[in-house]
Amino acid sequence: MLEEQLQEKINLKTKPLGSLGRLEKLALQIGMAQNSLFPNLQKPTIIVFAGDHGIAQMGVSAYPPEVTGQMVINFLSGGAAINVFCKHNQIDLQIVDAGVNYDFYNCGGVLINAKIAKGTKSFLNQKAMTEQQLEQCFYYGKNIVDQLSASECNVVGFGEMGIGNTASASMLMSYLCNIPLEQCIGRGTGLNDHQLLNKTAILKEAQSFHGTIAGIKEILQTFAGFEMAQMTAAMLQAFQHNMLILVDGFIATTAFLAAYKMKPDIKQNAIFCHQSDESGHHTLLNYLNVEALLNLNLRVGEGTGCALAYPVIANAVEFLNNMASFENANVSNKE
Amino acid sequence: MLEEQLQEKINLKTKPLGSLGRLEKLALQIGMAQNSLFPNLQKPTIIVFAGDHGIAQMGVSAYPPEVTGQMVINFLSGGAAINVFCKHNQIDLQIVDAGVNYDFYNCGGVLINAKIAKGTKSFLNQKAMTEQQLEQCFYYGKNIVDQLSASECNVVGFGEMGIGNTASASMLMSYLCNIPLEQCIGRGTGLNDHQLLNKTAILKEAQSFHGTIAGIKEILQTFAGFEMAQMTAAMLQAFQHNMLILVDGFIATTAFLAAYKMKPDIKQNAIFCHQSDESGHHTLLNYLNVEALLNLNLRVGEGTGCALAYPVIANAVEFLNNMASFENANVSNKE
Repeated sequence: MLEEQLQEKINLKTKPLGSLGRLEKLALQIGMAQNSLFPNLQKPTIIVFAGDHGIAQMGVSAYPPEVTGQMVINFLSGGAAINVFCKHNQIDLQIVDAGVNYDFYNCGGVLINAKIAKGTKSFLNQKAMTEQQLEQCFYYGKNIVDQLSASECNVVGFGEMGIGNTASASMLMSYLCNIPLEQCIGRGTGLNDHQLLNKTAILKEAQSFHGTIAGIKEILQTFAGFEMAQMTAAMLQAFQHNMLILVDGFIATTAFLAAYKMKPDIKQNAIFCHQSDESGHHTLLNYLNVEALLNLNLRVGEGTGCALAYPVIANAVEFLNNMASFENANVSNKE
Repeated sequence: MLEEQLQEKINLKTKPLGSLGRLEKLALQIGMAQNSLFPNLQKPTIIVFAGDHGIAQMGVSAYPPEVTGQMVINFLSGGAAINVFCKHNQIDLQIVDAGVNYDFYNCGGVLINAKIAKGTKSFLNQKAMTEQQLEQCFYYGKNIVDQLSASECNVVGFGEMGIGNTASASMLMSYLCNIPLEQCIGRGTGLNDHQLLNKTAILKEAQSFHGTIAGIKEILQTFAGFEMAQMTAAMLQAFQHNMLILVDGFIATTAFLAAYKMKPDIKQNAIFCHQSDESGHHTLLNYLNVEALLNLNLRVGEGTGCALAYPVIANAVEFLNNMASFENANVSNKE
């Protein structure tokens, strides 16, 4: 019923039928998610979860592991891409230390402390985290979103920082989707051919070591980073509060994938903001049967895709609420 | 020299090399166009040129011709898609009556009067306009941009409104690119199969009538709308003032095409904002060897693609000017 009303409201706007394309689909989705003919976006916020990865010691990234902590400090002082985009697009930004291998004292800025440990264990030959640590991740992720929701925010984007985390994401994707590992592995922040072969060999070794794993939580415990498990929990809780969920690139989409496997309805509230240049992302979006809003060849993470897509999403809500209809503008409709 | 300096500035920002994709290319292009390591965007403005088309009487559009005038009134009262997007994205909007078949008295709002006549002649069996009318179009287009440039605007988007103008644009594209007419014709605002066949038959008849035409201005005179010829002139003048030129969808790209044929260097300052769903647009962008920023299945015109792409463009300039470098943020670069 509401769906028909929303569609009619969209169709009667002064524009050729269907001519606002993706924006019309967004307006319909957001109206349905908020159960309203007059949806609104309140206090848009991006949360960046940061964590270190044991596997990063194996040279699976083009950058050294200490960059995770250095970039968190960069976030806190406002110098990273996500800072610039959030500021320009009037999006609040929250930074979460989910498990970075650095002690952030006197760094300035506001850092949410959700540190589980100073990085996960290497999943090459052990589980990345204990069952208890995974539970802690779920506890923190949930709490962070509860607080955000209490502040009247109803649209939240998810980004991440963690050297080595495309390796982690590839394992999650392969195990959760049952897609061959090769199709899930990419160059991350910029591996050359030789480094890519090395990354693939390491991940295959890990796959051999762990074999089959039953259960979503067991898969997360084995391969996820703290930042990714917290993100999964945060997404689930955002859906619980009926917030709109903006999904960033490859890593964030694998965190979403885990949430989706636990709660398929979460897709109703999710907007896939951009298609990353990371090679597995396109396959993963196809698996989820969704299409990304933007394709700008980004592969920086941090939630940058959410920040860049947000204006398009906001414009979709604006046209639904503020464009004239054929009738009240006295414009002739299609003959 | 500047190109290398700009590229180095981009490369030293705290992000994986090349990871901001299209935004990096935009930042480079804008820096080069403005001849500056610190480019800026001032007073972004979209100009919507409106005009009626004699050919519209032949049923080449899904909407009746009077919609052109009705939509101009809608622009003036703030109810159209372009109004909503410009307002939300803080873009100034100017509406130009280039030749609408309506007398706009007491309509409220600010309308720039550049009316050549109350619509072009039908190009089915005569030239759309006289040589003198084309010269008037060039005079108005130039003057409008001169005034805009004098107001310190340095980035201008171009949109249009004119029932029947995809027919006009298809003729221009076919003649200017020497591409078979069938590849240049699409459904416009929403023709069904039967109407599309009718449109194609009419345009082929026009092609037979006019035969070969030498000269860009002669082609414009034969097929363009007043709004399109003014837009071509306005784009040329925007380049003269070294402004950034935001190109909207299919119609605006054919107007750009004519400008490009007269002054190929204009491409340096042009940003192609979105790929329209109109079928010839993709072919035309390929012909120009350019890629559009957004692909949101829009086919509404009015400059809506420019308005939606503008935040991405602004974010590209922001990152170039405001992101930290590896050195000043103490972040380790690639090993």
